[in-house]
Amino acid sequence: MEAKALENFFHEQIPLTRHMQVGVAELGPPGLCLSAPLEANANLHGTAFGGSIASLAVLAGWALLHTRTRSAGINCSIVVQKSEISYERAIRGNFTSCCIEPENSAWDKFTRTLQKRGKSRITLDVVVEYDNQVAARLQATYAAEKTASSI
Amino acid sequence: MEAKALENFFHEQIPLTRHMQVGVAELGPPGLCLSAPLEANANLHGTAFGGSIASLAVLAGWALLHTRTRSAGINCSIVVQKSEISYERAIRGNFTSCCIEPENSAWDKFTRTLQKRGKSRITLDVVVEYDNQVAARLQATYAAEKTASSI
Repeated sequence: MEAKALENFFHEQIPLTRHMQVGVAELGPPGLCLSAPLEANANLHGTAFGGSIASLAVLAGWALLHTRTRSAGINCSIVVQKSEISYERAIRGNFTSCCIEPENSAWDKFTRTLQKRGKSRITLDVVVEYDNQVAARLQATYAAEKTASSI
Repeated sequence: MEAKALENFFHEQIPLTRHMQVGVAELGPPGLCLSAPLEANANLHGTAFGGSIASLAVLAGWALLHTRTRSAGINCSIVVQKSEISYERAIRGNFTSCCIEPENSAWDKFTRTLQKRGKSRITLDVVVEYDNQVAARLQATYAAEKTASSI
């Protein structure tokens, strides 16, 4: 899947991503990075709204799983089960969220279980950056379930 | 602050809340509840997008602190520092997020420290419901800092 196709996919399938103006900055490896402008995601302090930051971060993990399972020929639906985020500094401009590729062993275990039992879980780390510095860190657990066709 | 005024405040100050169609369902006590419709917050599965759910939840905690500090005559700016959310069931319709009032002792400690040191932190619990059942739970820590004027 190309960056532009993933961006269009988000905008069509998750209306809020259009309003957040989510972009795909990098499809990786080594990671998958999304971007968003400040203005559409600002709060009353003129910095990025915590909800937008968490949304962009959780989407990066989802997108990494979505594109990697598709590349591996696995049709599955993926949902976030839980997440933790810490906000380390205020964001005063455009920002990115990059999902770090999981270790090969974690990825293999995830796909093996998914193929064998029809469902599986994986925990991913996402780093949010603004002005080349870390602004927030998210860790999220996603649940995948095999489906008959691609979603 | 009236429910409608808080709703307008959100829509004016945090543009994304307009697109999420955030409403104020209840100003409490016993808690402060926000609402959002499914359609504007849907994902590709036709259920509520995890980012929207987390955003509505974190806003409920923020709004409770904002309204309660104003009522107490304290001018301060409030930002979320960290949060954890667990998604318990899919949301297939309009949903609400209710921030539970903190214990009196926790509130007193929060405001006392805020008055004395100019800044303080508090952790709040928020419950997201759909169809009268719990769909997600968020716990978030907010940092407040006294300001010269109301924000």
